[in-house]
Amino acid sequence: MTMHYNRLAGRNLDRLAALSDGVFAVAMTLLVLDIHVPAHELIQDEAGLWQALVGLAPRLLTYLMSFVTLGIFWLGQQAQLDRFARADRDLVWIHIGFLALVSVMPLSTALLGAFVTYRIALLAYWLNIALLGLVLYGSWRYASRAALLQADATPELSAAMVRRIAVAQGLYAIGAALCIFGTAWSIGFIALVQLNYALSPRWRRK
Amino acid sequence: MTMHYNRLAGRNLDRLAALSDGVFAVAMTLLVLDIHVPAHELIQDEAGLWQALVGLAPRLLTYLMSFVTLGIFWLGQQAQLDRFARADRDLVWIHIGFLALVSVMPLSTALLGAFVTYRIALLAYWLNIALLGLVLYGSWRYASRAALLQADATPELSAAMVRRIAVAQGLYAIGAALCIFGTAWSIGFIALVQLNYALSPRWRRK
Amino acid sequence: MTMHYNRLAGRNLDRLAALSDGVFAVAMTLLVLDIHVPAHELIQDEAGLWQALVGLAPRLLTYLMSFVTLGIFWLGQQAQLDRFARADRDLVWIHIGFLALVSVMPLSTALLGAFVTYRIALLAYWLNIALLGLVLYGSWRYASRAALLQADATPELSAAMVRRIAVAQGLYAIGAALCIFGTAWSIGFIALVQLNYALSPRWRRK
Amino acid sequence: MTMHYNRLAGRNLDRLAALSDGVFAVAMTLLVLDIHVPAHELIQDEAGLWQALVGLAPRLLTYLMSFVTLGIFWLGQQAQLDRFARADRDLVWIHIGFLALVSVMPLSTALLGAFVTYRIALLAYWLNIALLGLVLYGSWRYASRAALLQADATPELSAAMVRRIAVAQGLYAIGAALCIFGTAWSIGFIALVQLNYALSPRWRRK
Repeated sequence: MTMHYNRLAGRNLDRLAALSDGVFAVAMTLLVLDIHVPAHELIQDEAGLWQALVGLAPRLLTYLMSFVTLGIFWLGQQAQLDRFARADRDLVWIHIGFLALVSVMPLSTALLGAFVTYRIALLAYWLNIALLGLVLYGSWRYASRAALLQADATPELSAAMVRRIAVAQGLYAIGAALCIFGTAWSIGFIALVQLNYALSPRWRRK
Repeated sequence: MTMHYNRLAGRNLDRLAALSDGVFAVAMTLLVLDIHVPAHELIQDEAGLWQALVGLAPRLLTYLMSFVTLGIFWLGQQAQLDRFARADRDLVWIHIGFLALVSVMPLSTALLGAFVTYRIALLAYWLNIALLGLVLYGSWRYASRAALLQADATPELSAAMVRRIAVAQGLYAIGAALCIFGTAWSIGFIALVQLNYALSPRWRRK
Repeated sequence: MTMHYNRLAGRNLDRLAALSDGVFAVAMTLLVLDIHVPAHELIQDEAGLWQALVGLAPRLLTYLMSFVTLGIFWLGQQAQLDRFARADRDLVWIHIGFLALVSVMPLSTALLGAFVTYRIALLAYWLNIALLGLVLYGSWRYASRAALLQADATPELSAAMVRRIAVAQGLYAIGAALCIFGTAWSIGFIALVQLNYALSPRWRRK
Repeated sequence: MTMHYNRLAGRNLDRLAALSDGVFAVAMTLLVLDIHVPAHELIQDEAGLWQALVGLAPRLLTYLMSFVTLGIFWLGQQAQLDRFARADRDLVWIHIGFLALVSVMPLSTALLGAFVTYRIALLAYWLNIALLGLVLYGSWRYASRAALLQADATPELSAAMVRRIAVAQGLYAIGAALCIFGTAWSIGFIALVQLNYALSPRWRRK
């Protein structure tokens, strides 16, 4: 009886978490590389530097938006990993796909930062977020079916996980659709959704 | 009774520490990317290369200053994480905000390195440090109120934490204010403050 | 009797895993740095941006291919580390060599992305993969001989490990040889091989 | 009695190891960023690409040399951390200084890669290595005096640690001095020393 390599690989949840933390940390920090210090030759005095910095504001905004997005998905992935009893190769590959989408985030962000009034840039950015949500949904669904969840993961918990992803992605899709009226509407709406996810627990939990 | 997603996420202090170590490691290493090797075409001989390297000195100084700054805040955050019994979502979001400020540090440093005589560059750099301190203060205060500290965290310890942040930030603010006389005064003062924090234990502890 | 430094170093498997996760995470995320957002001056309208994005497609393809490659080798290395009882200095150096090849992957990928129709670019890319496989094979062989494997590592498991590497490398070599007919054949074949490794467990395991 | 902040910070050896692994991983991977894919406009055919790749050889050599250097110092630091019973703030600051020197390595390497025939570039590179050794020596000496070593760390072990650093640094200094005859002599000698450290256990241990 030959032994299958697939039985040997991908069991280690700790290393998946470590790889994920690494990819998130690098992607979060690379986001800022797209913001360039003004060229020295173009700046004559303090007022000129101030204006140049004000001109960087839209890029700082998209930077923060993407940092918060990555924070949301980092928490989302962590919430799942904390509930897995073990992994198998398929689950690991789902999460490698997830990390590939995380790595692309600095590119989507740079695209939106450079073409902030272009619908295609906004839709590419949204597509990145939507795929992140989709893969995270697929991860939970696969883990449920393949019996990789911890014993105490109840159907209620499972429903809460799925509902969370569905609601968030619904809101992002509305945000993307708002680009019919202009990309500023989309960006404003998506920024509000993210602020809600970052801050809401403060008032909703009571 | 529906289950709340917020109860599921953000409990894992180990992964927050891992993400933080990753962000700090990348930010610390990216700081150096702003220092460019002299262009080969401009260098004729050893003397020319020597002069070009001497010209890099101010950037090396701001690099070292920022590395020490990140070291100080890494220790500061670690001192807090070591005292937390557990995290909740709000605390994790406070620390994601903290990490966003850490990620911006290479940008602030590059700005100061390129415009070392500009007050606005210096104030932007100081603002970055001040916000790091503020968020770290907020983290401790929130964790105290939300009863997330370990059982052995006494009021004395809490007071020491807060005092430390307040004194350091007070010194940084004095340093920033010195830019009235010129940015060199500010940079010199802030560099001394940081050297003090890195080296002082050696003589003060006895 | 003097003590040998070599006895002191390199025993810690956990730190080797941590360094490896870090190098993989950075290399995976750096892959995307080679894809540049279109220059703002060249884009007039939505249609122009769309065309520019379509022009990025080959680079996105090589990006994904390399991400999957790194995923495959990350799993391969993890499968080995999980079976080692301990490390010695030689084994650690074999893995540092492995990580050097991982770090070069963004460069090979950028080369192939820029010169997608050049056989030399394709062969350089394949050489990178082949060396990764060779070092991983060497790692397993060395660990077997030096009795560094866990007690439950049977000859069957050992054979499965080696077979896996040999089959995969055989397929990659066929892919590289296909460049006689054109690099598109090679890239298509290698992409299929990698999809097979990422997805195959789904149908083969049943 | 007021509590001292210095008693609270820097105790956690695990997080120091994690930060170190992160900095090493990023520095190792950034080394390759200095090697640029040839510009597409300059390449006409396969022969042209081949020549351009051959022209990258000196940079690949300095890349590998620096990767091995970082590997040597990573092992050296790990050997120490594995022997520490605990850390205090001073020790952590010594290691933050060590990491600052690790972060500068990609810059020193890029400098040497760009000015491979310049003595100043070589001496800057050597200075980086010498400071790494010096700080590592200081770390061990401080930890011995401050009683931070594990109970089983004998004087023999301590002597082996110090001897190792002294011999290696002596060899590096000879290598640097050889630049009187030309930098090629230095680079060749240092490369041999490093190969010796990476490979020697294989024959010396028997």
